[in-house]
Amino acid sequence: MRATDIIASKRDGKSLTTDQIRFMVRGYTAGEIPDYQLSALLMAIYLRGMDASETAALTDAMLHSGDVIDFSDLGEARVDKHSTGGVGDKTSLVVAPVVAAAGVYVPMISGRALAHSGGTLDKLESIPGFRTNLSLLEFRQQMQRLGVALIGQTEEIAPADRKLYALRDVTATVACRPLMAASIMSKKMAEGISGLVLDVKTGSGAFLKTEDESRALARTMIQIAQSLERDAVALLTDMNQPLGRAVGNALEVVEALETLKGRGPSDFDNLCRELSAEMLVLSGTAGTVEQARTRYDELIDSGAGLEKMQKIIEAQSGDPRVTEDYSLLPASTGTSEVRASSAGFIEEIDTEMVGRAAMLLGAGRVRLDTQIDYGVGMVIRARIGDQVHQGSSLATLHFNDRAHAEESADLLAKAYKIGPREAPAPVLIKERIK
Amino acid sequence: MRATDIIASKRDGKSLTTDQIRFMVRGYTAGEIPDYQLSALLMAIYLRGMDASETAALTDAMLHSGDVIDFSDLGEARVDKHSTGGVGDKTSLVVAPVVAAAGVYVPMISGRALAHSGGTLDKLESIPGFRTNLSLLEFRQQMQRLGVALIGQTEEIAPADRKLYALRDVTATVACRPLMAASIMSKKMAEGISGLVLDVKTGSGAFLKTEDESRALARTMIQIAQSLERDAVALLTDMNQPLGRAVGNALEVVEALETLKGRGPSDFDNLCRELSAEMLVLSGTAGTVEQARTRYDELIDSGAGLEKMQKIIEAQSGDPRVTEDYSLLPASTGTSEVRASSAGFIEEIDTEMVGRAAMLLGAGRVRLDTQIDYGVGMVIRARIGDQVHQGSSLATLHFNDRAHAEESADLLAKAYKIGPREAPAPVLIKERIK
Repeated sequence: MRATDIIASKRDGKSLTTDQIRFMVRGYTAGEIPDYQLSALLMAIYLRGMDASETAALTDAMLHSGDVIDFSDLGEARVDKHSTGGVGDKTSLVVAPVVAAAGVYVPMISGRALAHSGGTLDKLESIPGFRTNLSLLEFRQQMQRLGVALIGQTEEIAPADRKLYALRDVTATVACRPLMAASIMSKKMAEGISGLVLDVKTGSGAFLKTEDESRALARTMIQIAQSLERDAVALLTDMNQPLGRAVGNALEVVEALETLKGRGPSDFDNLCRELSAEMLVLSGTAGTVEQARTRYDELIDSGAGLEKMQKIIEAQSGDPRVTEDYSLLPASTGTSEVRASSAGFIEEIDTEMVGRAAMLLGAGRVRLDTQIDYGVGMVIRARIGDQVHQGSSLATLHFNDRAHAEESADLLAKAYKIGPREAPAPVLIKERIK
Repeated sequence: MRATDIIASKRDGKSLTTDQIRFMVRGYTAGEIPDYQLSALLMAIYLRGMDASETAALTDAMLHSGDVIDFSDLGEARVDKHSTGGVGDKTSLVVAPVVAAAGVYVPMISGRALAHSGGTLDKLESIPGFRTNLSLLEFRQQMQRLGVALIGQTEEIAPADRKLYALRDVTATVACRPLMAASIMSKKMAEGISGLVLDVKTGSGAFLKTEDESRALARTMIQIAQSLERDAVALLTDMNQPLGRAVGNALEVVEALETLKGRGPSDFDNLCRELSAEMLVLSGTAGTVEQARTRYDELIDSGAGLEKMQKIIEAQSGDPRVTEDYSLLPASTGTSEVRASSAGFIEEIDTEMVGRAAMLLGAGRVRLDTQIDYGVGMVIRARIGDQVHQGSSLATLHFNDRAHAEESADLLAKAYKIGPREAPAPVLIKERIK
């Protein structure tokens, strides 16, 4: 078997065999096949695609490139949630503690900010002292003690994915359905879960912009889960505007904590409720989605979700007092308003541009080695369908560097399309796919 | 300008700008852009193509990645010939000395064996002592003294091409028209020539197998020449069977010398005559192709071509006595016949397979570091249209290793398709493109 022959097959639109895929993934992970051959293969996959069995084989090869955690000793109720990435998406910080508070094991391995999209790990690390880099042993101990842990991908989990992901990022092969599906599923299937709820974003702030592409991604991931004998369900959700109001790490932590206190913005709270409900049903903790929603409301009202979040923060070396005293979180030195240049209705928000405006402030990574500024970001004031006057605030910027703030404000203003017609607010949950 | 954005543009089927192409070629040559980004771009180019202006810009960027030789002090008559590669193609060894004997300057920079295809440099190096690695200064001095030199690509000539070529070879991006055209033309335009005759092969032994693809390659190269204000003409020639009879380095040198003595196989002699005639016309040495053919015949009959070849060998440190005493050339220790397994007519010869059979004997490189065995190869006995009996010789193998010989014989036998119907011999020169 030769790498060039395998590249040539995919280049010519042929299906690769499981052995060919395994040969490439193993060889690459072991450092025997060089980056430049993998990147040629990735581009061929991007342009030629992969069928369901190739994608399943790719996931399986990546999954087995490292350790696969066995949490079967914890019982059957082991469920996680994964989002395909967007702007203002802090749902993990709500659903993980709430669902764990219901007695479900939630072993959640998350990622960092990528391009315009935020990352759960970066948000958590804005909490002073919070450690996301638990060892596998610490992960296991916390799961036994607390039933939930929010950690980053370790060295041992799907090393092929880490290597491939970094390569995709610099070879323009990120937004490719089979590669996205295999990347997500290889990590998630290594977590030792019995079921997975997928939050597949679609719209201007998602990596896949159209509903068709996003739906196809959801179906591909569900097929992969089935091929590996796990339960999975996907919600196709709107990313044509930021989720909730806060964009930026510490600002999003505050919004998540407010939501755990029952005071979150309705769209964000609603998505947390639906995703939590799906997790509760998938784990067998609730019989129906309706019962599960009621359970979510109870866990919020009783403060059980917030209490679980405090315990997670404490267990992972963070300062649990932040849940009551937001001034312990990093903050920006200045704020400014981005104002509407004309009156009308908000017709569209280019949400990727909003994410890039937040990146410019320092909330995300412009380069791999960028140090994130946890206190900066923005609070969105005007959303699709809202009526604005000339000079109305569209968003409040939280900044530490005035030059960056101006650049960011310009970009953010450009992201808003204000028109004469009242635009309908986008439907948040577009479809349930199983 | 960022490499990933440029890769993404080509991935999405957009045309790259001259600046973008120059940025990638310069950055890659300087070692600032890594292999893995170039290979992703090469695969995107392979699958998305390049238009005429992109291909011209690519050639120009590659050409100017190194030294461009100026031979204008030698006058206007500076012409070279380039073949796109095939099996048994030793025309350079005949046309270079013959055309130079007519007073035309022929600064020929050639390549080595690649995949199933032979290389002029390897053929020349089968002559004891022959040096192909002249410095640019030696090259210039020999051009002034002798009017012709047969050398390899130096470090200074089109370094971008050398780097890109090696990368294409290991990323399944060789057989791509714009990349082939830019590779050939960037080297040839750096030679300091005023005109170029292209021998574009088509058929089972060529890199491009169909006439349409080969014709498109010819046209692309002629367009590039025009954009750089050089004269060029292409002959589309048959590569559905080996050219001449000899395949293998020293064996091909003998056939070329025999041809210079007027005793070459008619197909090979005919192609040398046509290519030489085009070179003589392009250089202004002959007024018409008909006159040029007569000139070729005179230069063969008078021995002027052979004498020039002796001088080239002597000037490049080879043993000029080989022209009269073939026993001074490397030879194999054994020979064997590959015989027809049934009676009939030769309908087809898979010429790439013939080339690979020669490679197996040691005539080509299986890997980059393979040491070529100059004495081995084969002499083709049966060609398309020939009638054979069961047991007739199809070819004589010249080998040094019996195990390889058997493997090679099997492959060679498989390359022949013998059928009941008399097949027409392929037309050697299919089209003239200008």
